[in-house]
Amino acid sequence: MKIVALAGGVGGARFLRGLRDALDADPGLAHSTLTVIANTGDDITLFGLRVSPDVDTLLYTLGGGIDEAQGWGRAEESFAVQGELAAYGVQPQWFALGDKDFGTHIARSLWLGHGLTPTEITARLAERWGLPGRGITILPMTDAPVETHVVVERAGGPEAIHFQQWWVAERAETRAEKFVVAGLDRATPAPGVLEAIGAADLVLLPPSNPVVSIGIILGVPGVREALRGTPAPIVGVAPLIGGRPVRGHADACLRAIGVDSTAAAVAGLYADFLDGWLVDPGDLESGPYPDGMQVIAHDGPLLMSDRQAAARIARASLDLGLSVNV
Amino acid sequence: MKIVALAGGVGGARFLRGLRDALDADPGLAHSTLTVIANTGDDITLFGLRVSPDVDTLLYTLGGGIDEAQGWGRAEESFAVQGELAAYGVQPQWFALGDKDFGTHIARSLWLGHGLTPTEITARLAERWGLPGRGITILPMTDAPVETHVVVERAGGPEAIHFQQWWVAERAETRAEKFVVAGLDRATPAPGVLEAIGAADLVLLPPSNPVVSIGIILGVPGVREALRGTPAPIVGVAPLIGGRPVRGHADACLRAIGVDSTAAAVAGLYADFLDGWLVDPGDLESGPYPDGMQVIAHDGPLLMSDRQAAARIARASLDLGLSVNV
Repeated sequence: MKIVALAGGVGGARFLRGLRDALDADPGLAHSTLTVIANTGDDITLFGLRVSPDVDTLLYTLGGGIDEAQGWGRAEESFAVQGELAAYGVQPQWFALGDKDFGTHIARSLWLGHGLTPTEITARLAERWGLPGRGITILPMTDAPVETHVVVERAGGPEAIHFQQWWVAERAETRAEKFVVAGLDRATPAPGVLEAIGAADLVLLPPSNPVVSIGIILGVPGVREALRGTPAPIVGVAPLIGGRPVRGHADACLRAIGVDSTAAAVAGLYADFLDGWLVDPGDLESGPYPDGMQVIAHDGPLLMSDRQAAARIARASLDLGLSVNV
Repeated sequence: MKIVALAGGVGGARFLRGLRDALDADPGLAHSTLTVIANTGDDITLFGLRVSPDVDTLLYTLGGGIDEAQGWGRAEESFAVQGELAAYGVQPQWFALGDKDFGTHIARSLWLGHGLTPTEITARLAERWGLPGRGITILPMTDAPVETHVVVERAGGPEAIHFQQWWVAERAETRAEKFVVAGLDRATPAPGVLEAIGAADLVLLPPSNPVVSIGIILGVPGVREALRGTPAPIVGVAPLIGGRPVRGHADACLRAIGVDSTAAAVAGLYADFLDGWLVDPGDLESGPYPDGMQVIAHDGPLLMSDRQAAARIARASLDLGLSVNV
C-alpha cells in the first residue's frame, strides 16, 4: 500500500513512527511505503545556517535519534557551539540548538550553497537515518523558501515576527492576530508531492497543528486541489482532545484564524477532502461534524502517551482508511 | 612602548603569550601595547564556514582558551558536530574541528555574511577573549581573501592543493614544489597594518614559519616596504635549532623555496629589514649571517618548552630590540 501523510513536527513524527510500527507489525502491510509531505513554513535561518525544524524532527524521530522526552532535538545532546555563540554575543539565544543538531544545519546549509534543493538535501539526510530502507520518504512541501510569520499586537502597534520567535521565544503567549506566510503564494509543490498524492492508496493527516503545520502545507498552491482530486481515501486524527491541544499551541493558532478549538471545528477545515476523522471518545458527541465525513472514536484516549499508544492510534486511522467510504 | 609582531599560528602565539607575560612582569614595560599582524593565508572554507586557523590560535592562546598540549584548538573540546558531518558523509574529515571551535567559525561566517570585514570580526572575537583590556590587538594581514596553495607532484602530474590539505592531511610529507598564494598580489594590508608598523617602537618576528606564515605576511603588497621604512628596530627569533624546525614543517617549506634549513639562511630571507636575530646557542657559529645584522645567542635552548621558557625567549628578544643598532 502506498500511504501519503502530511505532517508537521513532534506530533506528526510520533504518529508516523507509530504508523511505521503498525505497518511493520502487520504482515499484510509491512511492505507499504510511507511518503511524508513535511511542513517547511517553520524553517528559519539562525546563525547563518538554515534550520528546518519539522523536517529534522521527522528525520530524528523516524531515524531513532530524537530526544524522546522533549520530542525535538537530538538525544544525548550537548550545547558547546551555542555556548560559544553566546559568549561571542551572537543573538538570538532563545532557540536552543544542540551540537549534533548543528551538524544537520551545517550539512544542509553547505548543500544549499552547493545548489542542492531542499528535496535533494532531505533525501541525503534521510539516507543517514536509514529511512529509504524502511520504505519512508520525506518530501519537503516545497523547495521554495517559505516562512510563516505571526502578526502580534505590540504597544507600538502590530508587528510581524517569525513563527519560531512567537512559538519558542514567546511560547505562543502573545496573542496572534494572523499568520502571514511569506512566499507561500508563489511556492510550487516540491517534486513528487502532487504525484504521491495522486498515486496514493491512502492519505493520512496525523494530529499535527491544523493551522501552522497542515494548514501551511495545504496552502502550497496545488496541494489542496490534489487532495480533492485523489481517488484515495483521506483520513485524519484530531489534534485536540476535549477542546485542548494534545501538545503545542493549536488553540492559540486556531483563535488567530477564527476557528473554535474543537475536533469538529478542525474537521471543518478539511471538509472539502476529508473522508474519515478519528477522535477521542469524549469528542464523538461534541459535533456537529461536517456532513458525509465518517467520524469514529478511538478505542481509548487519543493521546500518544508512548510509542505503543501512537502505534494503536495509527492502526486505528489505518483501519478507518481501509474501511471508509470515499 | 608600541610593539608590533608578525605571526603565524602555534609558535607565534606561544611566543606572544610569553612576550605579554614578560611585559607584564616588567613595571617599565607593563603598559606596552602589542599589535599582532596575523597570517591569513592558511584560511580555508570548511563545511561552508570560514576558518582562520592562525587568527584563532592567536585568540585562543592569548585569551586562555587554547588546548595547551596540542597548541591549537580549544581546551576541553568535544567533537559532536564533526561526528555528525561524518555520519552525513560530508567531506573533508581530515581537519578536526571541535564543537567550541565551530562556534568561532559560525560566528565569523555569520558576520562575514553581514558584511563585516575580517578586521572587524577579529576585533569582535578578541573582545570576548579579553585582549583589548590587556593591550593586545590582532590584525589580520589583509581583509582580502588570500589562500596559500601548495603545488605537489602526483603520479598524473603537478597538482595544486590547499595549504591545509598539504599541512594537515598529508603532514607536509608530500614534496612541495612551490607555494602559490591565490589573491596575494591583489591584496592590500588590512586597515591599521601599515600604520602600526610605521608607528612601532619595536617590531618582532616570533619563531613562526618563515615561508608559509611570515613569508605570506611579507608578501602582502606594502608590508615589506613598511618594514624597510620603519624607524623602529626589527628583531626576530630563529624558528630552527640546529637546522631542524622547532615545530611544524618549516624545513619542508624552506626546501620548496630553495633555502637551506638553517637559522642563518632564514635570517637571509629578512636581510633587507632585520636588525637583530636571536638564535639557539648552538647556531651562533653556524653562519655566515647577513652583514650588519646583530646575531646573539639565547641564554639557554631556544625552545619554548613551556610558558616560562617562552617568556624568557621573548624577554631576550625584547632586550635585543632595546639594544640593537638600527
